[in-house]
Amino acid sequence: MKIRILWAGKTKEQYLIDGIDRYLKLLGHMAQVSVIDIKEEKGKPRGPALAAEGSRILKQTRSYTLLNEKGREFTSVEFAGYLGKKVNFDFVVGGPYGVSEEIREKASDTISLSRMTFTHEMVRLVFLEQLYRAMTIMKGMEYHH
Amino acid sequence: MKIRILWAGKTKEQYLIDGIDRYLKLLGHMAQVSVIDIKEEKGKPRGPALAAEGSRILKQTRSYTLLNEKGREFTSVEFAGYLGKKVNFDFVVGGPYGVSEEIREKASDTISLSRMTFTHEMVRLVFLEQLYRAMTIMKGMEYHH
Repeated sequence: MKIRILWAGKTKEQYLIDGIDRYLKLLGHMAQVSVIDIKEEKGKPRGPALAAEGSRILKQTRSYTLLNEKGREFTSVEFAGYLGKKVNFDFVVGGPYGVSEEIREKASDTISLSRMTFTHEMVRLVFLEQLYRAMTIMKGMEYHH
Repeated sequence: MKIRILWAGKTKEQYLIDGIDRYLKLLGHMAQVSVIDIKEEKGKPRGPALAAEGSRILKQTRSYTLLNEKGREFTSVEFAGYLGKKVNFDFVVGGPYGVSEEIREKASDTISLSRMTFTHEMVRLVFLEQLYRAMTIMKGMEYHH
């Protein structure tokens, strides 16, 4: 299984960097999981900046699942079932200002971790933990973390 | 506004301790927020252990909102509206094995952060961030964190 996660900009909060590293290591034992750091476009207005980030994302992937609070919700077990349907997955996680309209429109699928709004950095951590949880579910392992 | 959060057992993951501290400090500027660490009951079977923890919780509060993935879901804005309804809130967050049946039954209300299962320690972080976000929404502040 090969999973690529695309997000724009480096994580800044140290405690989240630590948590993200932790789950990337755990995931590395179970699948080919990589994070693709899309260069963040600084400056305002945000519309054109998001569009520029969007173009960079689309250079990397043409078939991706977008994470967005308005997307489809899963339980963790359902999410494991979702992951089990394909061999390769690209996931796009929005930045502090979300993603461009083009990225929203071209997404193959849009899923949600919660109806609540999380910080874009916290989404990274929560999502990696869910990926790890889903893989333990798929493999019938006990979850310790 | 006075909010008490009751959970059983100390947080163990350092990165989550750091994140939790961060939000408790931010929350401290906005309301009276305290965490009540309920002594964890070790050992198995889990039923009697959870029941013992439950009795300790009920010594502290008789009117509380339970966090549970099967509870009612909110958007962050709706959650701010929920918080605005009362002056005092007690929230109970389950441990690694959840909470006793008695705690589930006696809850005034049950709310959910996500349909997905999070680790009980990550729930602490995510919940505190949502509390902070809700308070910034209630106060009409810009959210930076």
